[in-house]
Amino acid sequence: MARRGAFITFEGIEGSGKSTQIELLAEALRREQRRVVLTREPGGSPLGVELRRLAMHVREPTPAPMTELLLYLADRAQHLADVVVPALGAGEVVLCDRFSASTIAYQGFARGLDIELVTRLDEVVRRGLQPDLTIVLDCAVETGLQRARGDDRFHDEDAAFHRRVRAGFLALARRAPDRHLVLDAGGPIGDLHTRIAAAVGAVLR
Amino acid sequence: MARRGAFITFEGIEGSGKSTQIELLAEALRREQRRVVLTREPGGSPLGVELRRLAMHVREPTPAPMTELLLYLADRAQHLADVVVPALGAGEVVLCDRFSASTIAYQGFARGLDIELVTRLDEVVRRGLQPDLTIVLDCAVETGLQRARGDDRFHDEDAAFHRRVRAGFLALARRAPDRHLVLDAGGPIGDLHTRIAAAVGAVLR
Repeated sequence: MARRGAFITFEGIEGSGKSTQIELLAEALRREQRRVVLTREPGGSPLGVELRRLAMHVREPTPAPMTELLLYLADRAQHLADVVVPALGAGEVVLCDRFSASTIAYQGFARGLDIELVTRLDEVVRRGLQPDLTIVLDCAVETGLQRARGDDRFHDEDAAFHRRVRAGFLALARRAPDRHLVLDAGGPIGDLHTRIAAAVGAVLR
Repeated sequence: MARRGAFITFEGIEGSGKSTQIELLAEALRREQRRVVLTREPGGSPLGVELRRLAMHVREPTPAPMTELLLYLADRAQHLADVVVPALGAGEVVLCDRFSASTIAYQGFARGLDIELVTRLDEVVRRGLQPDLTIVLDCAVETGLQRARGDDRFHDEDAAFHRRVRAGFLALARRAPDRHLVLDAGGPIGDLHTRIAAAVGAVLR
């Protein structure tokens, strides 16, 4: 019997523990003989790796907010075409580190581009595809930033910026509670994993 | 007396002679003590140079049509912010090799993305700014391709593709004849320059 694939996205501020939970979930799904694809945005395709660098690491000159948005959307268009759509078509479970909610939270809520505009442009690029479930790992900005590593441009931003990102994720989850699972990222890693695995299991059944 | 700047764009298929006419026009304007900025899309900003390479020279894997569109629009957003808007604000004459009409002709008319969608996305990125005059150098595809040099991905396309581009430019010019000057690029270079200089002179007066 062919199992259907699923598209599960993970969202949260820097240091919210997305990578850890994605790895744990992938291991659990593979133990159940699921075929799993771990990917991320930006940078989930070969072209996307270069776009990630341009969008996140170029400081001189800093990309304009609209440029930044369009780079992330270009990355998404290519990632969907190269990776996500083929994997879902083959019945695989796609676990993606950041997707549309990050674009709307970072470029809209935090950077100040018009939120409805960002939302509409993202819809154009997604062409109707949307995650079966989005897991938001919610944590205090101070906690997240202490745990976050990396030297990309988002580490240049102040705490107020990251607080707007966090508020953005929570607002998006409230708009579509049936497609979002918001978890307190401060809980024990094993407990978080159990809750995520249960929610994803419900999607896959 | 402060002279006002102007935004003049040149459009046409490969090999239509845009570069030659832009150079001749810049020389003529400088003889009249105008401050002139020569620029181009894609690639008119430092970030844009990298986007030009990704959009036009990466063949493995080929960017999806939507990715390609978003890369050109990202290039435009940055080029407007870094180059065009500051120059116009300083009263300079901006001569730009390709702009919105190329995006609509290549990605819409020729590549097959929805023309109204491409037009709307371009409007979002331009935020109301549009050329004072667009000069379309119209020539037969066979003539243009013989004259064109370069090894970018557009040289991989067949003659039918370039015929759709040409038809796109002519359709856009017909939609807004007051902002377009269509010239037969096959005429003598000096005659073409005279007509272009006269039209631009009228814009600047």
